[in-house]
Amino acid sequence: MTRTAKELAELIGARLEGDGAAEVQGVAAPERAGARDLIYVEAAKHSERAGASAAQVVVAQPGLSLSGKTVLRASNAKYAFAKAAAILRERVPIARGVHPTAIVAPLARVHASASIGPYAVIGEDSHLGEGTEIGAHTVIGAACWIGDHCRIHPRVTLYSGVRIGHRVEIHSGAVIGADGFGYAHGEGRYLKFPQAGIVEIADDVEIGANATIDRGSLDDTRIAEGVKLDNLVHIGHNVKIGVHTVIAAQTGVSGSSTIGDNVIVGGQVGIADHCTLESRSVAGAQAGIPTGKTIRSGQTVWGTPAREIGKFKEIYVWYARLPELAERIKELEARVGKG
Amino acid sequence: MTRTAKELAELIGARLEGDGAAEVQGVAAPERAGARDLIYVEAAKHSERAGASAAQVVVAQPGLSLSGKTVLRASNAKYAFAKAAAILRERVPIARGVHPTAIVAPLARVHASASIGPYAVIGEDSHLGEGTEIGAHTVIGAACWIGDHCRIHPRVTLYSGVRIGHRVEIHSGAVIGADGFGYAHGEGRYLKFPQAGIVEIADDVEIGANATIDRGSLDDTRIAEGVKLDNLVHIGHNVKIGVHTVIAAQTGVSGSSTIGDNVIVGGQVGIADHCTLESRSVAGAQAGIPTGKTIRSGQTVWGTPAREIGKFKEIYVWYARLPELAERIKELEARVGKG
Amino acid sequence: MTRTAKELAELIGARLEGDGAAEVQGVAAPERAGARDLIYVEAAKHSERAGASAAQVVVAQPGLSLSGKTVLRASNAKYAFAKAAAILRERVPIARGVHPTAIVAPLARVHASASIGPYAVIGEDSHLGEGTEIGAHTVIGAACWIGDHCRIHPRVTLYSGVRIGHRVEIHSGAVIGADGFGYAHGEGRYLKFPQAGIVEIADDVEIGANATIDRGSLDDTRIAEGVKLDNLVHIGHNVKIGVHTVIAAQTGVSGSSTIGDNVIVGGQVGIADHCTLESRSVAGAQAGIPTGKTIRSGQTVWGTPAREIGKFKEIYVWYARLPELAERIKELEARVGKG
Repeated sequence: MTRTAKELAELIGARLEGDGAAEVQGVAAPERAGARDLIYVEAAKHSERAGASAAQVVVAQPGLSLSGKTVLRASNAKYAFAKAAAILRERVPIARGVHPTAIVAPLARVHASASIGPYAVIGEDSHLGEGTEIGAHTVIGAACWIGDHCRIHPRVTLYSGVRIGHRVEIHSGAVIGADGFGYAHGEGRYLKFPQAGIVEIADDVEIGANATIDRGSLDDTRIAEGVKLDNLVHIGHNVKIGVHTVIAAQTGVSGSSTIGDNVIVGGQVGIADHCTLESRSVAGAQAGIPTGKTIRSGQTVWGTPAREIGKFKEIYVWYARLPELAERIKELEARVGKG
Repeated sequence: MTRTAKELAELIGARLEGDGAAEVQGVAAPERAGARDLIYVEAAKHSERAGASAAQVVVAQPGLSLSGKTVLRASNAKYAFAKAAAILRERVPIARGVHPTAIVAPLARVHASASIGPYAVIGEDSHLGEGTEIGAHTVIGAACWIGDHCRIHPRVTLYSGVRIGHRVEIHSGAVIGADGFGYAHGEGRYLKFPQAGIVEIADDVEIGANATIDRGSLDDTRIAEGVKLDNLVHIGHNVKIGVHTVIAAQTGVSGSSTIGDNVIVGGQVGIADHCTLESRSVAGAQAGIPTGKTIRSGQTVWGTPAREIGKFKEIYVWYARLPELAERIKELEARVGKG
Repeated sequence: MTRTAKELAELIGARLEGDGAAEVQGVAAPERAGARDLIYVEAAKHSERAGASAAQVVVAQPGLSLSGKTVLRASNAKYAFAKAAAILRERVPIARGVHPTAIVAPLARVHASASIGPYAVIGEDSHLGEGTEIGAHTVIGAACWIGDHCRIHPRVTLYSGVRIGHRVEIHSGAVIGADGFGYAHGEGRYLKFPQAGIVEIADDVEIGANATIDRGSLDDTRIAEGVKLDNLVHIGHNVKIGVHTVIAAQTGVSGSSTIGDNVIVGGQVGIADHCTLESRSVAGAQAGIPTGKTIRSGQTVWGTPAREIGKFKEIYVWYARLPELAERIKELEARVGKG
């Protein structure tokens, strides 16, 4: 969608410097941009790339000089650029209308403006809100509730009873609401412990490709507003995740753990069962958090078993110097004698 | 399904204490239970939660006093509760009858009582046993054999020639029988090594969402009775897993490794190729077991590379004290002189 | 397909020793082989297995004596055997013809010899080359380009704009071209950073089951010729992978990292963002490579954070001896006194 620099500045809350009539209709990296692509610069070291770009309009942090360009000045240039991109870029529709091959159960309630792709299956008593798009081959179980303006890509599975808020995006291959991994052991075998809870996902959540979120056992699994889960993330039964928490790819959260608000979890982190990551804590990539452990609010942890990053580094620096320590012990022994 | 406390006690082998006529029709956590939900208590510290519950009937370990409740007394309360849940809870059907859009190959043999969901595809010469349910969009390749009362959820893939026992449950997104990761290197490239084996899965196995189990190369991949695999687990070609072994989420088992009976493998464990985990061994979460390593029967291992847990802890306690050890070396040097 | 030993020797470039008229029609392990199965032996220690096999024809390294067998002598026996297997084994077809239930968009260009399985969906303006097979339930987005003789198994998703070369094999459940995990943080929430790039996959690439490869953000994600990715591998946005690189199961590569040619990456490796693995480097299983790190050409790294294997082992050997070092410090203190 084409916008003038002036229009865009207003829409994203930036200060216009230069030609307000300059038109933009897409976003790009500086090297790939055409005259009508919007680019952005965050750091002085990238000013040259921006200056050399064919782009006419640049979102830039205060203090960066960009002669010859129309500048949309914003203190958080990356965020302003993302806002602009959301305006300029048309999203590829996931479905258009309800495809004749879609199977919608008689008692499903589908908003007139919702779209359903080829071969999608919508279960009995499920609800699809206004403007929500369901991709080809996606299977929505019975009694699911999906809010407005959701984007459920092709080949997603929702087991029965999953509840999804508004503006949620779920990528292909994700499986929401499968049974948790819970068994009772007896008579030499494992018997399934009831997985009778549901999954609740709040507004503005995004879930990556092939991620899995299990339903609760006797409780529910709950993902709060604004949470972003990357590809191949695993969320176990009864897990609670607070608002605006982000979890990078291939991380696993075991049953009944609680993650607070605005937590950042790196890739391939393992969080065992019954852990608590308090709000604003950070777990570095590949960290391992043992059963029942609490990570305090604001704390950053690394390693397996995870410990506070300052402590981790204090130990780690000596780990790296172990051969030297061993040599020094040997020298001391040579001087003192071994007895 | 409604049962009286007396009926249930008999069915699960518990001793009835209290009102045998009390009716139950579901299971719940103590805090969520209604009068007709069954709850369970394992430990004395949870007696209060149970006592405060609206539930009338409680499965409890011997020795826990629960005044005012009808008690189903069982030495393994969790297991007895799971048995009761299997009786009380109706499982959501995966499919009802054979949907008209299901594509069943002419020579497939489908038991009259089997169900196949919308758009599922059943390959030539495949066999579906009594009462087996196949979910929407599941693709069963040619020449697969699936036993009785299996539950194959929507969007599962079985490549050709996969053999599945009875009462097996496979969750959405799982892929069984894809080619193993085997190549021969020559002429500057990797050429696929033949992946000509099959996958055999025995009775009462459960396979998590988006898990992958590769077919054998010149051998077969075999999963024995009662094995439980969590979400996103990867099982490489030619792997053998013994009876009643459980493997938590995101663990990977590389080609030609052998895991014995009743083994417990935590989440995100990496088992390299040609390893042996003998029966009743345990691998802690995120452990890394190097190529060709054997973990002895009954042994518990931790860490990467994995070592026996006692040894792991003995080392680890000093790892955590490395800054102190370094300081002590420095002090010794100060006293002795460095020469 | 049946071949004589003589024909096969010529086709795979091996030297024939023995009965050139002996017929072979499959491949097997020595213990499972019938008279007409081809087997191979690489090492002297396996000569006995080969000798005892019912197979009549053996691919073997020079110097291995196998009396009574017809030998196809090749310096790289495993590779020669893989070449023979590619000739002898008929691949299970993924689809035959275009199934009437396949939905092919009006402007899609499908080569007359391409096959499309039941319920597959081919998006507008997409191209399928000669002999390419698309499995049941696979969803190809708009404007994808897929070359000749590709094998896309059932239940694969290609988002729009993905480009695939020739002879590429993609296993079930893989998701190519989903949005990368990129957000701009502002106003207390995460806003999607534009994921406007594409995915380009070159010739002879193989992608494992349930693997995910994200589209570029302002750049593209590119996988070069001959790359092999195992199951459940995650490739983030803007990642570049060079020719003939292999990556084992469950490894994750974060955004904007670059992996060179002929690199070997073990299973469950975590490669953070903006890393460089130069050509012919090796990352051992479960290694963790921190943000921005460069692994030099030819270097092998282990551990988290990853370091050169020689250095890793030098440190690790002392790690394992930490209790002994602590004891030696204690003894020194006893002798010297603590001051």
